[in-house]
Amino acid sequence: MDTALVGGLEAGGTKFVCAVGRGPDVAVDMRIATTTPRETLDGAVEFFRQHGPIAALGVASFGPVDLDPRSPTYGFITTTPKPGWAHTDVVGPLRAALGVPIAFDTDVNAAALAEHRWGAARDVGSVVYVTVGTGIGGGAVVNGRPVHGLVHPEMGHVRIPHDRTADPFAGACPHHGDCWEGLAAAPALTARWGRPPESLPDEHPAWVLEARYLALGLVNVILTLSPERVVLGGGVMTRAGLLERVRAAVQGVLGGYVRAAEIVAPALGERSGVLGALALAADVAGG
Amino acid sequence: MDTALVGGLEAGGTKFVCAVGRGPDVAVDMRIATTTPRETLDGAVEFFRQHGPIAALGVASFGPVDLDPRSPTYGFITTTPKPGWAHTDVVGPLRAALGVPIAFDTDVNAAALAEHRWGAARDVGSVVYVTVGTGIGGGAVVNGRPVHGLVHPEMGHVRIPHDRTADPFAGACPHHGDCWEGLAAAPALTARWGRPPESLPDEHPAWVLEARYLALGLVNVILTLSPERVVLGGGVMTRAGLLERVRAAVQGVLGGYVRAAEIVAPALGERSGVLGALALAADVAGG
Repeated sequence: MDTALVGGLEAGGTKFVCAVGRGPDVAVDMRIATTTPRETLDGAVEFFRQHGPIAALGVASFGPVDLDPRSPTYGFITTTPKPGWAHTDVVGPLRAALGVPIAFDTDVNAAALAEHRWGAARDVGSVVYVTVGTGIGGGAVVNGRPVHGLVHPEMGHVRIPHDRTADPFAGACPHHGDCWEGLAAAPALTARWGRPPESLPDEHPAWVLEARYLALGLVNVILTLSPERVVLGGGVMTRAGLLERVRAAVQGVLGGYVRAAEIVAPALGERSGVLGALALAADVAGG
Repeated sequence: MDTALVGGLEAGGTKFVCAVGRGPDVAVDMRIATTTPRETLDGAVEFFRQHGPIAALGVASFGPVDLDPRSPTYGFITTTPKPGWAHTDVVGPLRAALGVPIAFDTDVNAAALAEHRWGAARDVGSVVYVTVGTGIGGGAVVNGRPVHGLVHPEMGHVRIPHDRTADPFAGACPHHGDCWEGLAAAPALTARWGRPPESLPDEHPAWVLEARYLALGLVNVILTLSPERVVLGGGVMTRAGLLERVRAAVQGVLGGYVRAAEIVAPALGERSGVLGALALAADVAGG
Protein backbone atom coordinates (compact mmCIF):
# COMPACT_ATOMS: atom_id res chain seq x y z
CA MET A 1 0.00 0.00 0.00
CA ASP A 2 3.03 2.30 0.11
CA THR A 3 3.54 2.17 -3.63
CA ALA A 4 1.02 4.77 -4.80
CA LEU A 5 2.15 8.38 -4.96
CA VAL A 6 0.29 10.20 -2.19
CA GLY A 7 0.21 13.65 -0.67
CA GLY A 8 0.81 14.70 2.91
CA LEU A 9 -0.17 18.05 4.39
CA GLU A 10 0.90 19.13 7.85
CA ALA A 11 -1.40 22.02 8.66
CA GLY A 12 0.34 23.95 11.41
CA GLY A 13 -0.47 27.22 13.08
CA THR A 14 2.57 28.98 11.59
CA LYS A 15 3.22 26.98 8.44
CA PHE A 16 1.72 24.34 6.19
CA VAL A 17 4.15 21.64 5.05
CA CYS A 18 3.17 19.90 1.81
CA ALA A 19 4.87 16.77 0.49
CA VAL A 20 4.28 14.10 -2.12
CA GLY A 21 5.95 10.74 -1.90
CA ARG A 22 5.72 7.01 -1.60
CA GLY A 23 5.80 5.74 1.97
CA PRO A 24 8.39 7.72 3.88
CA ASP A 25 10.28 8.66 0.72
CA VAL A 26 9.43 12.25 -0.01
CA ALA A 27 9.85 13.25 -3.65
CA VAL A 28 9.25 16.96 -3.15
CA ASP A 29 8.05 19.18 -0.33
CA MET A 30 7.22 22.82 0.30
CA ARG A 31 6.48 25.12 3.22
CA ILE A 32 3.75 27.79 3.08
CA ALA A 33 3.26 30.41 5.78
CA THR A 34 -0.14 30.06 7.47
CA THR A 35 -2.04 33.21 6.53
CA THR A 36 -5.77 33.14 5.80
CA PRO A 37 -7.50 29.78 5.32
CA ARG A 38 -8.34 30.61 1.69
CA GLU A 39 -4.84 31.68 0.68
CA THR A 40 -3.07 28.88 2.57
CA LEU A 41 -5.34 26.09 1.34
CA ASP A 42 -5.14 27.46 -2.24
CA GLY A 43 -1.35 27.30 -2.02
CA ALA A 44 -1.50 23.70 -0.86
CA VAL A 45 -3.92 22.71 -3.64
CA GLU A 46 -1.65 24.24 -6.24
CA PHE A 47 1.33 22.28 -4.90
CA PHE A 48 -0.50 18.93 -5.02
CA ARG A 49 -1.83 19.66 -8.53
CA GLN A 50 1.64 20.48 -9.76
CA HIS A 51 3.35 17.48 -8.20
CA GLY A 52 0.60 14.86 -8.59
CA PRO A 53 -1.45 13.13 -9.60
CA ILE A 54 -1.74 11.80 -6.03
CA ALA A 55 -3.88 8.80 -5.13
CA ALA A 56 -4.89 10.22 -1.75
CA LEU A 57 -4.12 13.05 0.64
CA GLY A 58 -3.43 12.88 4.36
CA VAL A 59 -3.94 15.99 6.49
CA ALA A 60 -2.28 16.33 9.92
CA SER A 61 -3.81 19.40 11.44
CA PHE A 62 -3.45 21.68 14.42
CA GLY A 63 -6.58 21.59 16.51
CA PRO A 64 -8.96 21.12 18.03
CA VAL A 65 -10.44 19.39 15.00
CA ASP A 66 -13.61 17.43 14.25
CA LEU A 67 -12.71 13.82 13.42
CA ASP A 68 -16.21 12.36 13.50
CA PRO A 69 -17.16 11.32 9.94
CA ARG A 70 -20.87 11.50 10.91
CA SER A 71 -20.58 15.12 12.00
CA PRO A 72 -21.63 18.01 9.75
CA THR A 73 -18.36 19.72 10.68
CA TYR A 74 -16.14 16.70 9.98
CA GLY A 75 -12.77 17.89 8.70
CA PHE A 76 -13.05 21.29 10.35
CA ILE A 77 -10.62 23.03 12.65
CA THR A 78 -13.06 23.95 15.43
CA THR A 79 -12.49 26.20 18.45
CA THR A 80 -8.90 27.33 17.86
CA PRO A 81 -7.97 30.76 19.21
CA LYS A 82 -5.90 31.37 16.05
CA PRO A 83 -7.44 34.45 14.35
CA GLY A 84 -9.39 33.64 11.21
CA TRP A 85 -9.16 29.86 11.65
CA ALA A 86 -11.93 28.99 14.12
CA HIS A 87 -14.60 26.76 12.50
CA THR A 88 -12.68 26.43 9.23
CA ASP A 89 -13.48 23.62 6.81
CA VAL A 90 -10.12 22.14 5.86
CA VAL A 91 -11.07 18.83 4.26
CA GLY A 92 -13.99 20.17 2.16
CA PRO A 93 -12.04 22.59 -0.06
CA LEU A 94 -9.16 20.13 -0.48
CA ARG A 95 -11.50 17.31 -1.51
CA ALA A 96 -13.43 19.57 -3.89
CA ALA A 97 -10.23 20.78 -5.55
CA LEU A 98 -8.27 17.54 -5.67
CA GLY A 99 -10.98 14.87 -5.99
CA VAL A 100 -9.05 12.23 -4.07
CA PRO A 101 -9.75 10.37 -0.79
CA ILE A 102 -8.65 12.46 2.18
CA ALA A 103 -7.61 11.20 5.62
CA PHE A 104 -7.75 13.76 8.41
CA ASP A 105 -6.25 13.63 11.90
CA THR A 106 -4.49 15.71 14.52
CA ASP A 107 -0.86 16.64 13.99
CA VAL A 108 0.13 14.67 17.09
CA ASN A 109 -1.83 11.55 16.17
CA ALA A 110 -0.15 11.71 12.74
CA ALA A 111 3.25 12.10 14.40
CA ALA A 112 2.53 9.06 16.59
CA LEU A 113 1.59 7.11 13.45
CA ALA A 114 4.75 8.16 11.61
CA GLU A 115 7.02 7.27 14.53
CA HIS A 116 5.15 3.96 14.79
CA ARG A 117 5.51 3.13 11.12
CA TRP A 118 8.92 4.52 10.23
CA GLY A 119 10.56 6.00 13.33
CA ALA A 120 11.34 5.44 16.99
CA ALA A 121 8.42 3.07 17.66
CA ARG A 122 8.64 0.77 14.63
CA ASP A 123 8.99 -2.41 16.67
CA VAL A 124 6.12 -1.93 19.14
CA GLY A 125 2.33 -2.17 18.99
CA SER A 126 1.30 0.94 20.89
CA VAL A 127 2.92 4.33 21.14
CA VAL A 128 2.21 7.72 22.63
CA TYR A 129 3.80 10.79 21.03
CA VAL A 130 4.10 13.87 23.24
CA THR A 131 5.47 17.21 22.10
CA VAL A 132 6.53 19.93 24.54
CA GLY A 133 6.84 23.37 22.97
CA THR A 134 4.52 26.36 22.93
CA GLY A 135 1.95 23.88 24.24
CA ILE A 136 1.91 20.23 25.20
CA GLY A 137 0.20 17.93 22.75
CA GLY A 138 -0.16 14.19 22.69
CA GLY A 139 -1.26 11.60 20.17
CA ALA A 140 -1.51 7.84 20.40
CA VAL A 141 -1.60 4.74 18.26
CA VAL A 142 -3.41 1.83 19.95
CA ASN A 143 -4.37 -1.45 18.33
CA GLY A 144 -2.62 -0.18 15.18
CA ARG A 145 -4.71 2.97 14.74
CA PRO A 146 -4.69 6.56 15.99
CA VAL A 147 -6.93 7.09 19.01
CA HIS A 148 -10.13 8.97 18.27
CA GLY A 149 -13.22 9.12 20.37
CA LEU A 150 -15.64 11.81 21.31
CA VAL A 151 -13.05 14.27 20.02
CA HIS A 152 -9.37 13.36 20.24
CA PRO A 153 -6.80 13.24 23.00
CA GLU A 154 -6.00 16.60 24.59
CA MET A 155 -3.33 15.27 26.91
CA GLY A 156 -1.74 18.69 27.43
CA HIS A 157 -4.57 19.66 29.74
CA VAL A 158 -4.44 16.79 32.23
CA ARG A 159 -4.16 17.92 35.84
CA ILE A 160 -1.05 17.09 37.84
CA PRO A 161 -0.04 17.70 41.45
CA HIS A 162 1.23 21.25 41.93
CA ASP A 163 2.89 22.11 45.21
CA ARG A 164 2.28 25.86 45.48
CA THR A 165 4.71 26.15 48.37
CA ALA A 166 7.59 24.86 46.28
CA ASP A 167 6.34 26.53 43.08
CA PRO A 168 3.96 29.43 43.65
CA PHE A 169 3.61 30.05 39.88
CA ALA A 170 -0.12 30.02 39.14
CA GLY A 171 0.16 28.40 35.73
CA ALA A 172 -0.06 29.79 32.20
CA CYS A 173 -3.04 27.97 30.65
CA PRO A 174 -5.83 30.43 29.84
CA HIS A 175 -8.40 27.66 30.35
CA HIS A 176 -7.11 25.80 33.42
CA GLY A 177 -4.23 27.72 34.96
CA ASP A 178 -1.98 25.01 36.32
CA CYS A 179 -2.80 22.03 34.11
CA TRP A 180 0.15 20.09 32.61
CA GLU A 181 0.64 22.53 29.74
CA GLY A 182 0.03 25.46 32.08
CA LEU A 183 2.93 24.32 34.27
CA ALA A 184 5.39 22.82 31.80
CA ALA A 185 5.09 24.21 28.25
CA ALA A 186 7.54 26.89 27.09
CA PRO A 187 5.29 29.87 27.96
CA ALA A 188 5.05 28.59 31.55
CA LEU A 189 8.86 28.47 31.80
CA THR A 190 9.14 31.97 30.40
CA ALA A 191 6.53 33.33 32.81
CA ARG A 192 7.88 31.48 35.86
CA TRP A 193 11.56 32.34 35.41
CA GLY A 194 11.23 35.69 33.66
CA ARG A 195 13.08 34.63 30.55
CA PRO A 196 12.58 32.15 27.73
CA PRO A 197 13.66 28.55 28.38
CA GLU A 198 16.38 28.60 25.74
CA SER A 199 18.19 31.28 27.78
CA LEU A 200 18.22 29.22 30.99
CA PRO A 201 21.53 27.40 31.61
CA ASP A 202 21.59 23.60 31.86
CA GLU A 203 22.25 23.74 35.60
CA HIS A 204 19.33 26.09 36.37
CA PRO A 205 16.83 24.62 38.89
CA ALA A 206 14.15 25.21 36.27
CA TRP A 207 15.12 21.95 34.60
CA VAL A 208 14.72 19.84 37.74
CA LEU A 209 11.20 21.21 38.21
CA GLU A 210 10.47 20.82 34.49
CA ALA A 211 11.52 17.16 34.54
CA ARG A 212 9.28 16.59 37.57
CA TYR A 213 6.22 18.15 35.90
CA LEU A 214 6.82 16.37 32.61
CA ALA A 215 7.14 13.08 34.53
CA LEU A 216 3.90 13.63 36.46
CA GLY A 217 1.97 14.14 33.22
CA LEU A 218 3.69 11.27 31.44
CA VAL A 219 2.93 8.90 34.32
CA ASN A 220 -0.76 9.73 33.99
CA VAL A 221 -0.62 9.01 30.27
CA ILE A 222 1.36 5.81 30.83
CA LEU A 223 -1.04 4.49 33.50
CA THR A 224 -4.07 5.28 31.33
CA LEU A 225 -2.89 3.98 27.96
CA SER A 226 -0.10 1.57 28.93
CA PRO A 227 1.87 2.33 25.75
CA GLU A 228 4.86 0.19 24.92
CA ARG A 229 6.83 3.30 24.04
CA VAL A 230 6.61 7.05 24.60
CA VAL A 231 8.19 9.34 22.01
CA LEU A 232 8.92 12.69 23.64
CA GLY A 233 9.73 15.60 21.36
CA GLY A 234 9.21 19.31 20.80
CA GLY A 235 11.40 22.37 21.23
CA VAL A 236 11.69 22.21 25.02
CA MET A 237 12.95 18.62 24.83
CA THR A 238 16.00 19.63 22.78
CA ARG A 239 17.60 20.79 26.08
CA ALA A 240 20.65 18.60 26.81
CA GLY A 241 20.04 16.15 29.63
CA LEU A 242 16.31 16.81 30.00
CA LEU A 243 15.17 13.50 28.48
CA GLU A 244 17.39 11.60 30.95
CA ARG A 245 16.02 13.65 33.84
CA VAL A 246 12.45 12.96 32.75
CA ARG A 247 13.15 9.21 32.55
CA ALA A 248 14.54 9.17 36.09
CA ALA A 249 11.64 11.23 37.42
CA VAL A 250 9.07 8.91 35.79
CA GLN A 251 10.65 5.93 37.58
CA GLY A 252 10.53 7.89 40.83
CA VAL A 253 6.86 8.80 40.48
CA LEU A 254 5.82 5.27 39.47
CA GLY A 255 7.61 3.88 42.51
CA GLY A 256 8.16 0.50 40.89
CA TYR A 257 4.42 -0.16 40.72
CA VAL A 258 4.29 -0.99 37.02
CA ARG A 259 6.89 -1.36 34.32
CA ALA A 260 7.21 2.03 32.65
CA ALA A 261 7.20 2.43 28.90
CA GLU A 262 10.57 3.27 27.39
CA ILE A 263 10.77 7.03 26.79
CA VAL A 264 12.73 7.99 23.69
CA ALA A 265 13.46 10.96 21.46
CA PRO A 266 11.69 11.16 18.09
CA ALA A 267 13.53 9.52 15.20
CA LEU A 268 11.80 11.65 12.57
CA GLY A 269 12.38 15.00 14.27
CA GLU A 270 10.40 17.85 12.75
CA ARG A 271 9.30 15.64 9.89
CA SER A 272 7.02 13.41 11.95
CA GLY A 273 3.94 15.54 11.19
CA VAL A 274 4.21 15.57 7.42
CA LEU A 275 5.37 11.94 7.32
CA GLY A 276 2.37 11.06 9.45
CA ALA A 277 0.19 12.80 6.91
CA LEU A 278 1.76 10.62 4.19
CA ALA A 279 1.08 7.52 6.32
CA LEU A 280 -2.56 8.56 6.72
CA ALA A 281 -2.78 9.03 2.94
CA ALA A 282 -1.19 5.67 2.20
CA ASP A 283 -3.82 3.99 4.38
CA VAL A 284 -6.77 5.49 2.52
CA ALA A 285 -5.13 5.07 -0.89
CA GLY A 286 -5.00 1.36 -0.22
CA GLY A 287 -8.64 1.14 0.91
CA MET B 1 -20.21 -15.40 16.54
CA ASP B 2 -22.48 -15.38 19.62
CA THR B 3 -24.06 -18.72 18.77
CA ALA B 4 -21.45 -21.13 20.15
CA LEU B 5 -21.75 -22.12 23.81
CA VAL B 6 -18.80 -20.50 25.57
CA GLY B 7 -17.50 -20.15 29.10
CA GLY B 8 -16.77 -17.01 31.07
CA LEU B 9 -14.67 -16.86 34.22
CA GLU B 10 -14.40 -13.73 36.32
CA ALA B 11 -11.38 -14.35 38.50
CA GLY B 12 -11.75 -12.00 41.45
CA GLY B 13 -9.76 -11.61 44.62
CA THR B 14 -12.61 -12.85 46.82
CA LYS B 15 -14.61 -15.03 44.43
CA PHE B 16 -14.48 -16.66 41.02
CA VAL B 17 -17.68 -16.36 38.99
CA CYS B 18 -18.11 -19.07 36.34
CA ALA B 19 -20.77 -18.98 33.65
CA VAL B 20 -21.61 -20.72 30.39
CA GLY B 21 -23.84 -19.16 27.83
CA ARG B 22 -24.39 -17.79 24.37
CA GLY B 23 -23.68 -14.08 24.03
CA PRO B 24 -25.08 -12.32 27.07
CA ASP B 25 -27.57 -15.11 27.78
CA VAL B 26 -26.18 -17.07 30.71
CA ALA B 27 -27.42 -20.64 30.92
CA VAL B 28 -25.88 -21.43 34.30
CA ASP B 29 -23.44 -19.76 36.64
CA MET B 30 -21.66 -20.46 39.91
CA ARG B 31 -19.60 -18.61 42.50
CA ILE B 32 -16.49 -20.14 44.11
CA ALA B 33 -14.64 -18.53 47.01
CA THR B 34 -11.08 -17.60 46.05
CA THR B 35 -8.87 -19.84 48.20
CA THR B 36 -5.63 -21.33 46.85
CA PRO B 37 -4.95 -21.15 43.12
CA ARG B 38 -5.03 -24.95 42.82
CA GLU B 39 -8.33 -25.43 44.60
CA THR B 40 -10.06 -22.45 42.98
CA LEU B 41 -8.94 -23.26 39.44
CA ASP B 42 -9.87 -26.94 39.94
CA GLY B 43 -13.36 -25.85 40.98
CA ALA B 44 -13.70 -23.73 37.85
CA VAL B 45 -12.49 -26.54 35.59
CA GLU B 46 -15.02 -28.90 37.08
CA PHE B 47 -17.84 -26.42 36.46
CA PHE B 48 -16.93 -25.93 32.80
CA ARG B 49 -16.55 -29.70 32.25
CA GLN B 50 -19.97 -30.32 33.77
CA HIS B 51 -21.75 -27.62 31.86
CA GLY B 52 -19.91 -27.80 28.55
CA PRO B 53 -18.68 -28.63 26.09
CA ILE B 54 -17.68 -25.01 25.59
CA ALA B 55 -16.11 -23.74 22.36
CA ALA B 56 -13.85 -21.25 24.16
CA LEU B 57 -13.23 -19.71 27.57
CA GLY B 58 -12.82 -16.04 28.45
CA VAL B 59 -11.02 -15.12 31.67
CA ALA B 60 -11.48 -11.66 33.25
CA SER B 61 -8.91 -11.53 36.00
CA PHE B 62 -7.85 -9.37 38.91
CA GLY B 63 -4.34 -8.10 38.38
CA PRO B 64 -1.80 -7.07 37.57
CA VAL B 65 -1.70 -9.69 34.84
CA ASP B 66 0.58 -10.50 31.91
CA LEU B 67 -1.33 -9.99 28.64
CA ASP B 68 1.64 -10.25 26.26
CA PRO B 69 1.23 -13.44 24.20
CA ARG B 70 5.00 -13.43 23.49
CA SER B 71 5.86 -13.44 27.18
CA PRO B 72 6.83 -16.64 29.03
CA THR B 73 4.45 -15.56 31.80
CA TYR B 74 1.49 -14.81 29.49
CA GLY B 75 -1.74 -15.60 31.31
CA PHE B 76 -0.24 -15.16 34.76
CA ILE B 77 -1.41 -13.00 37.62
CA THR B 78 1.88 -11.26 38.37
CA THR B 79 2.76 -9.00 41.33
CA THR B 80 -0.50 -9.09 43.31
CA PRO B 81 -0.18 -8.67 47.08
CA LYS B 82 -2.92 -11.32 47.54
CA PRO B 83 -1.29 -14.17 49.53
CA GLY B 84 -0.58 -17.27 47.48
CA TRP B 85 -1.53 -15.66 44.15
CA ALA B 86 1.58 -13.74 43.08
CA HIS B 87 3.09 -15.16 39.87
CA THR B 88 0.26 -17.66 39.37
CA ASP B 89 -0.34 -19.24 35.97
CA VAL B 90 -4.08 -18.93 35.39
CA VAL B 91 -4.41 -19.64 31.67
CA GLY B 92 -2.02 -22.62 31.56
CA PRO B 93 -3.93 -24.98 33.89
CA LEU B 94 -7.27 -24.00 32.37
CA ARG B 95 -6.05 -24.63 28.82
CA ALA B 96 -4.46 -27.93 29.79
CA ALA B 97 -7.63 -29.14 31.49
CA LEU B 98 -10.22 -27.83 29.04
CA GLY B 99 -8.40 -27.96 25.68
CA VAL B 100 -10.22 -24.92 24.26
CA PRO B 101 -9.03 -21.48 23.07
CA ILE B 102 -8.72 -19.10 26.02
CA ALA B 103 -8.95 -15.31 25.95
CA PHE B 104 -7.41 -13.50 28.91
CA ASP B 105 -7.80 -9.90 30.03
CA THR B 106 -8.20 -7.72 33.08
CA ASP B 107 -11.52 -7.68 34.90
CA VAL B 108 -11.97 -3.97 34.08
CA ASN B 109 -11.13 -4.34 30.38
CA ALA B 110 -13.66 -7.18 30.25
CA ALA B 111 -16.24 -5.00 32.01
CA ALA B 112 -15.61 -2.23 29.47
CA LEU B 113 -16.08 -4.76 26.67
CA ALA B 114 -19.33 -6.08 28.16
CA GLU B 115 -20.78 -2.60 28.68
CA HIS B 116 -19.71 -1.77 25.11
CA ARG B 117 -21.30 -4.85 23.61
CA TRP B 118 -24.42 -5.34 25.72
CA GLY B 119 -24.69 -2.55 28.27
CA ALA B 120 -24.48 1.19 28.81
CA ALA B 121 -22.09 1.87 25.91
CA ARG B 122 -23.69 -0.18 23.14
CA ASP B 123 -24.12 2.71 20.75
CA VAL B 124 -20.61 4.23 20.91
CA GLY B 125 -17.20 3.33 19.55
CA SER B 126 -15.00 3.91 22.56
CA VAL B 127 -15.67 3.51 26.25
CA VAL B 128 -13.81 3.71 29.52
CA TYR B 129 -15.07 1.66 32.48
CA VAL B 130 -14.02 2.85 35.92
CA THR B 131 -14.89 1.10 39.17
CA VAL B 132 -14.54 2.79 42.56
CA GLY B 133 -14.51 0.38 45.47
CA THR B 134 -11.69 -1.09 47.55
CA GLY B 135 -9.48 0.31 44.80
CA ILE B 136 -9.98 2.29 41.62
CA GLY B 137 -9.64 0.30 38.42
CA GLY B 138 -10.15 1.29 34.83
CA GLY B 139 -10.46 -0.52 31.53
CA ALA B 140 -11.00 0.78 28.02
CA VAL B 141 -12.24 -0.30 24.62
CA VAL B 142 -10.72 1.73 21.77
CA ASN B 143 -11.05 1.00 18.08
CA GLY B 144 -13.32 -1.90 19.08
CA ARG B 145 -10.81 -3.72 21.25
CA PRO B 146 -9.64 -3.64 24.88
CA VAL B 147 -6.54 -1.50 25.39
CA HIS B 148 -3.37 -3.47 26.02
CA GLY B 149 0.15 -2.24 25.74
CA LEU B 150 3.28 -2.73 27.73
CA VAL B 151 1.06 -4.07 30.48
CA HIS B 152 -2.50 -2.77 30.77
CA PRO B 153 -4.10 0.41 32.06
CA GLU B 154 -3.62 1.05 35.77
CA MET B 155 -5.72 4.19 35.86
CA GLY B 156 -6.28 4.00 39.61
CA HIS B 157 -2.74 5.20 40.20
CA VAL B 158 -2.77 8.41 38.14
CA ARG B 159 -1.71 11.48 40.12
CA ILE B 160 -4.18 14.28 40.72
CA PRO B 161 -3.93 17.68 42.40
CA HIS B 162 -4.17 17.33 46.18
CA ASP B 163 -4.57 20.49 48.21
CA ARG B 164 -3.08 19.49 51.57
CA THR B 165 -4.42 22.62 53.23
CA ALA B 166 -8.01 21.71 52.40
CA ASP B 167 -7.41 17.96 52.85
CA PRO B 168 -4.37 17.10 54.98
CA PHE B 169 -5.04 13.34 54.59
CA ALA B 170 -1.79 11.82 53.27
CA GLY B 171 -3.42 9.20 51.07
CA ALA B 172 -3.94 5.46 51.50
CA CYS B 173 -2.04 3.91 48.57
CA PRO B 174 0.87 1.80 49.85
CA HIS B 175 2.78 2.53 46.63
CA HIS B 176 2.09 6.21 45.99
CA GLY B 177 0.28 7.72 48.98
CA ASP B 178 -2.01 10.28 47.42
CA CYS B 179 -2.57 8.94 43.92
CA TRP B 180 -6.18 8.80 42.65
CA GLU B 181 -6.94 5.51 44.40
CA GLY B 182 -5.04 6.67 47.47
CA LEU B 183 -7.32 9.69 47.79
CA ALA B 184 -10.68 8.41 46.54
CA ALA B 185 -11.14 4.62 46.95
CA ALA B 186 -13.18 3.29 49.89
CA PRO B 187 -10.16 2.70 52.20
CA ALA B 188 -9.15 6.36 51.74
CA LEU B 189 -12.62 7.47 52.80
CA THR B 190 -12.53 5.19 55.83
CA ALA B 191 -9.09 6.44 56.86
CA ARG B 192 -9.86 10.12 56.25
CA TRP B 193 -13.21 10.26 58.04
CA GLY B 194 -12.67 7.56 60.64
CA ARG B 195 -15.55 5.41 59.47
CA PRO B 196 -16.48 3.43 56.38
CA PRO B 197 -18.10 5.36 53.52
CA GLU B 198 -21.40 3.51 53.79
CA SER B 199 -21.87 5.00 57.28
CA LEU B 200 -21.41 8.60 56.10
CA PRO B 201 -24.71 10.44 55.53
CA ASP B 202 -25.53 11.83 52.08
CA GLU B 203 -25.01 15.42 53.26
CA HIS B 204 -21.56 14.76 54.76
CA PRO B 205 -18.83 16.99 53.23
CA ALA B 206 -16.97 13.78 52.40
CA TRP B 207 -19.09 13.43 49.26
CA VAL B 208 -18.27 16.88 47.91
CA LEU B 209 -14.55 16.13 48.24
CA GLU B 210 -15.06 12.63 46.82
CA ALA B 211 -16.84 14.01 43.75
CA ARG B 212 -13.99 16.49 43.23
CA TYR B 213 -11.29 13.79 43.41
CA LEU B 214 -13.22 11.42 41.18
CA ALA B 215 -13.69 14.25 38.66
CA LEU B 216 -9.98 15.14 38.64
CA GLY B 217 -9.01 11.57 37.82
CA LEU B 218 -11.79 11.15 35.25
CA VAL B 219 -10.77 14.36 33.50
CA ASN B 220 -7.25 12.98 33.09
CA VAL B 221 -8.63 9.78 31.62
CA ILE B 222 -11.04 11.70 29.36
CA LEU B 223 -8.30 14.02 28.04
CA THR B 224 -5.95 11.12 27.38
CA LEU B 225 -8.34 8.63 25.76
CA SER B 226 -11.17 10.88 24.56
CA PRO B 227 -13.77 8.14 25.12
CA GLU B 228 -17.28 8.68 23.83
CA ARG B 229 -18.66 7.38 27.10
CA VAL B 230 -17.47 6.73 30.65
CA VAL B 231 -19.20 3.99 32.64
CA LEU B 232 -18.63 4.66 36.34
CA GLY B 233 -19.42 1.84 38.75
CA GLY B 234 -18.26 0.11 41.92
CA GLY B 235 -19.49 0.08 45.50
CA VAL B 236 -18.67 3.70 46.30
CA MET B 237 -20.70 4.88 43.30
CA THR B 238 -23.91 3.37 44.69
CA ARG B 239 -24.16 6.42 46.98
CA ALA B 240 -27.29 8.43 46.01
CA GLY B 241 -26.43 11.65 44.21
CA LEU B 242 -22.71 10.95 43.80
CA LEU B 243 -22.85 10.30 40.05
CA GLU B 244 -24.59 13.64 39.49
CA ARG B 245 -22.02 15.41 41.65
CA VAL B 246 -19.17 13.82 39.71
CA ARG B 247 -20.72 14.91 36.40
CA ALA B 248 -20.96 18.51 37.58
CA ALA B 249 -17.42 18.47 38.94
CA VAL B 250 -16.04 17.09 35.65
CA GLN B 251 -17.64 19.99 33.78
CA GLY B 252 -16.14 22.39 36.27
CA VAL B 253 -12.62 20.98 35.97
CA LEU B 254 -12.75 20.88 32.16
CA GLY B 255 -13.81 24.51 32.10
CA GLY B 256 -15.53 24.14 28.75
CA TYR B 257 -12.26 23.34 26.99
CA VAL B 258 -13.41 20.13 25.33
CA ARG B 259 -16.71 18.32 25.15
CA ALA B 260 -16.76 15.81 28.01
CA ALA B 261 -17.79 12.23 27.52
CA GLU B 262 -21.15 11.33 28.95
CA ILE B 263 -20.70 9.68 32.37
CA VAL B 264 -23.22 6.95 33.11
CA ALA B 265 -23.89 4.16 35.59
CA PRO B 266 -23.19 0.58 34.48
CA ALA B 267 -26.10 -1.20 32.84
CA LEU B 268 -24.80 -4.66 33.70
CA GLY B 269 -24.07 -3.97 37.37
CA GLU B 270 -22.05 -6.68 39.09
CA ARG B 271 -22.39 -8.93 36.05
CA SER B 272 -20.15 -6.85 33.79
CA GLY B 273 -17.05 -8.87 34.66
CA VAL B 274 -18.41 -12.31 33.92
CA LEU B 275 -20.34 -11.06 30.87
CA GLY B 276 -17.11 -9.48 29.64
CA ALA B 277 -15.45 -12.86 30.04
CA LEU B 278 -18.19 -14.37 27.86
CA ALA B 279 -17.63 -11.62 25.28
CA LEU B 280 -13.90 -12.37 25.23
CA ALA B 281 -14.70 -16.06 24.77
CA ALA B 282 -17.15 -15.39 21.94
CA ASP B 283 -14.44 -13.44 20.10
CA VAL B 284 -11.90 -16.27 20.20
CA ALA B 285 -14.53 -18.94 19.52
CA GLY B 286 -15.29 -17.17 16.27
CA GLY B 287 -11.62 -16.88 15.23
